[in-house]
Amino acid sequence: MSADFEKYFQEHRQEMLDRLFGFLKFRSISADPDYLPEMEACREFLMTWLKSIGMESVRLLDGGGHPAVYAESVRHRDRPTIIVYGHYDVQPPDPIELWKSDPFDPTLTDDRIYARGASDVKGSTSVAIEVVAAYIALEDECPINVKFLIEGEEETGSPSLGSIVERYSDILRADAVLSADGGRVTADLPTINVGARGIAKLDFHLKTADKDLHSGRYGGAVRNALHEIVRILASLHDPNGRVAVPGFLESVADVSEDERIEASRLPFDEDEFVSAVGALPHGEKEYSLRERLTLRPTIEVNGVWGGYQGPGMKTIVPCEASAKLTMRLAAGQDPDYAQEVVRNHLINQCPEGASITFSSMDKGSPASALDPKHPIVAGPAHVIEKEYGSDVIPVRLGATVPITSIFSEKLGIETLLFGFNLPDEDIHAPNEFYRLSSIEDGFRVWSKVFKELSRFNPEQFHKR
Amino acid sequence: MSADFEKYFQEHRQEMLDRLFGFLKFRSISADPDYLPEMEACREFLMTWLKSIGMESVRLLDGGGHPAVYAESVRHRDRPTIIVYGHYDVQPPDPIELWKSDPFDPTLTDDRIYARGASDVKGSTSVAIEVVAAYIALEDECPINVKFLIEGEEETGSPSLGSIVERYSDILRADAVLSADGGRVTADLPTINVGARGIAKLDFHLKTADKDLHSGRYGGAVRNALHEIVRILASLHDPNGRVAVPGFLESVADVSEDERIEASRLPFDEDEFVSAVGALPHGEKEYSLRERLTLRPTIEVNGVWGGYQGPGMKTIVPCEASAKLTMRLAAGQDPDYAQEVVRNHLINQCPEGASITFSSMDKGSPASALDPKHPIVAGPAHVIEKEYGSDVIPVRLGATVPITSIFSEKLGIETLLFGFNLPDEDIHAPNEFYRLSSIEDGFRVWSKVFKELSRFNPEQFHKR
Repeated sequence: MSADFEKYFQEHRQEMLDRLFGFLKFRSISADPDYLPEMEACREFLMTWLKSIGMESVRLLDGGGHPAVYAESVRHRDRPTIIVYGHYDVQPPDPIELWKSDPFDPTLTDDRIYARGASDVKGSTSVAIEVVAAYIALEDECPINVKFLIEGEEETGSPSLGSIVERYSDILRADAVLSADGGRVTADLPTINVGARGIAKLDFHLKTADKDLHSGRYGGAVRNALHEIVRILASLHDPNGRVAVPGFLESVADVSEDERIEASRLPFDEDEFVSAVGALPHGEKEYSLRERLTLRPTIEVNGVWGGYQGPGMKTIVPCEASAKLTMRLAAGQDPDYAQEVVRNHLINQCPEGASITFSSMDKGSPASALDPKHPIVAGPAHVIEKEYGSDVIPVRLGATVPITSIFSEKLGIETLLFGFNLPDEDIHAPNEFYRLSSIEDGFRVWSKVFKELSRFNPEQFHKR
Repeated sequence: MSADFEKYFQEHRQEMLDRLFGFLKFRSISADPDYLPEMEACREFLMTWLKSIGMESVRLLDGGGHPAVYAESVRHRDRPTIIVYGHYDVQPPDPIELWKSDPFDPTLTDDRIYARGASDVKGSTSVAIEVVAAYIALEDECPINVKFLIEGEEETGSPSLGSIVERYSDILRADAVLSADGGRVTADLPTINVGARGIAKLDFHLKTADKDLHSGRYGGAVRNALHEIVRILASLHDPNGRVAVPGFLESVADVSEDERIEASRLPFDEDEFVSAVGALPHGEKEYSLRERLTLRPTIEVNGVWGGYQGPGMKTIVPCEASAKLTMRLAAGQDPDYAQEVVRNHLINQCPEGASITFSSMDKGSPASALDPKHPIVAGPAHVIEKEYGSDVIPVRLGATVPITSIFSEKLGIETLLFGFNLPDEDIHAPNEFYRLSSIEDGFRVWSKVFKELSRFNPEQFHKR
């Protein structure tokens, strides 16, 4: 960090933390309609904040779902315009009883901020805002043109972000996207993201009778919805954890030698990775764990329920059962097609006497890949190499940031995932946290990246 | 009904209904500790009622769980002493949202009383009490010696009834048990119960990691608790619905020719039976549906849950899953052994990287069978034959009344299931109801059965 920025950071550290804590207090759970007022309050908070640091054109961009918050600082005709992407929505806090502190009352313990959304991704979003604030405070303007796009539907798969980007494509015209979402692999290594898996989802409901039946009166005579759903779900994988749905792996190319070499560049202790969370390795034995996590697709059952779940026993033959599935997609897989083959498989597995209905057929996102020579990769990579004094390691993400394909399709621009969160921070789980050190690291690196990107000519972002 | 009893019934009909409604208002859910005060209030209500009709020695019998209510009327040295069994506890009302009226605010619609416990078994229990009340009012005493035993744990498998019967075996000395629980097959046919399936239960919990994991970070690398539990549960049955647990069917004798003939005596429309509840027939094809329901054992998954069940999606690899199982046992199956082979099967199916814990290993009950010549069968059968003008049809129950084996083991006496509820009354399900006509039928038949039983010598109940 330049001396000015270092001083600014130290002097404003507590205020930055206060602002982040304020941001984290909103129960901005996009999946649950009960929290609509909190979502709105959170947007108001962000807009007030962005105006206060000197951003212009602060407004909401509405695509039919939860609106996104927009703000810009466009001062340079010949310099790159970068969309800085973040999101203000968070995952539901369930199972709430496993939290050691209130998920919406941020708690600072051992230099970690515990709160839902701390790591995913209010922490890194706030760092990006603070960097722009520092530039405006210290130099009166940011070295590049910045357009903040902070959406409210990332945790539900960004269903209306496509409409937003399309509807406001003039406002959002830019040369690349720098995303505060999509974190670091580790704090110790100079890594940069060059790809991510895609996603598709499928929820379904199974029914075998009009009502739950007494197991003494009907047991042995009719289908049990739970017996059916477990048999159907069990057919999704072979015993090695490989997807067993016909057609699902069809368009997935085998891992190439180059990909295998790239995947192995990241030092990665497979045993430690899984034992740290109390698990054992599992999955396709012919691929390394790192390859399985980033280059191979999965189907995950995220939730299953049916019948009686209360205390004691209830001797019923349940008539209904439900399941939620998501798929992580590899390069080459079309999300609609993946969803369709799984849907067809479920229907094929469903016997006479049971019926399946699908409750959600949202559009998914394909996997993404970035050219390391593109300025949005090369610029930040240069900063990172200087920071660490060694070559940058390209890594792929096992997770999905659906924005990548949206910005590519709708605006024709590339996205670099550049959040400063770390993989052990229990995102989507109880006791999510964000490290204080990531705020300082993020602030330092992002401020340098803005400067570095300012050296590129906007045209360089669009060469093929 | 004799003219006196007929007149009494018509004159007291409304009062009887009021008392039953009062009984039904208690949320006496034995499975859920939250309802302990309601359980206690319900016992108080019963004791006050029993005292008011002239019963003696009204008291609680405590076996370490929910106490049973006891009351007696013992006036005849040489006549049989019959335990009249009922229960004041009810099933939980879940899923509560499917009830058309409040399950604990009894509602009279189309000559049906809708309430949790109306059919199972506060309705038939109240009829038994009203018959004794009528005898005392009209004839100053009951023609037989009656000992009411109204327990509070039937819906949780009567865990402490064994202790109660053992501890109070002197008080409970009797010649047979007439149970208000275990209903009729149909209102149109002269049936009598000669057996019931047994029961065993098993709840388990499966764990694959210390916490729920982000499916983008871990998906493809570790086991998913839901993938494991569905595979394990799917292994309990073959595609025909036949139990596939090694050893489970070992001690179950094939259905004999006599049993096959007996089972076929009851007119039974298999298609109508299942289509009435919106289902299709399913199960072991080599047995008739009636045989499957009464002579063959089952394993039913009563509940399964794990992962995210809320709105929207949550991209996790769930680390925990749970299931509740009950088994309906055929003659020859030891409940402990049945539980053990299922338990062992679950453990054997559980792979390295997943662990199973069992949360409940309550004792079960074996199947039961009655000799049609025993006075507790022959007496009531005679009344029924006169009522219908045709031979009585012996039937077996697919359900379980654990009391049968408890009274047999602890007191050496037989139990006749003689409730007046009917099989379509949605017990253990939403919108449970009891027919007004069953109150009148029950009152008439029970009053005659008491008289008929009084003609037997107590010794006849104990001959072998």
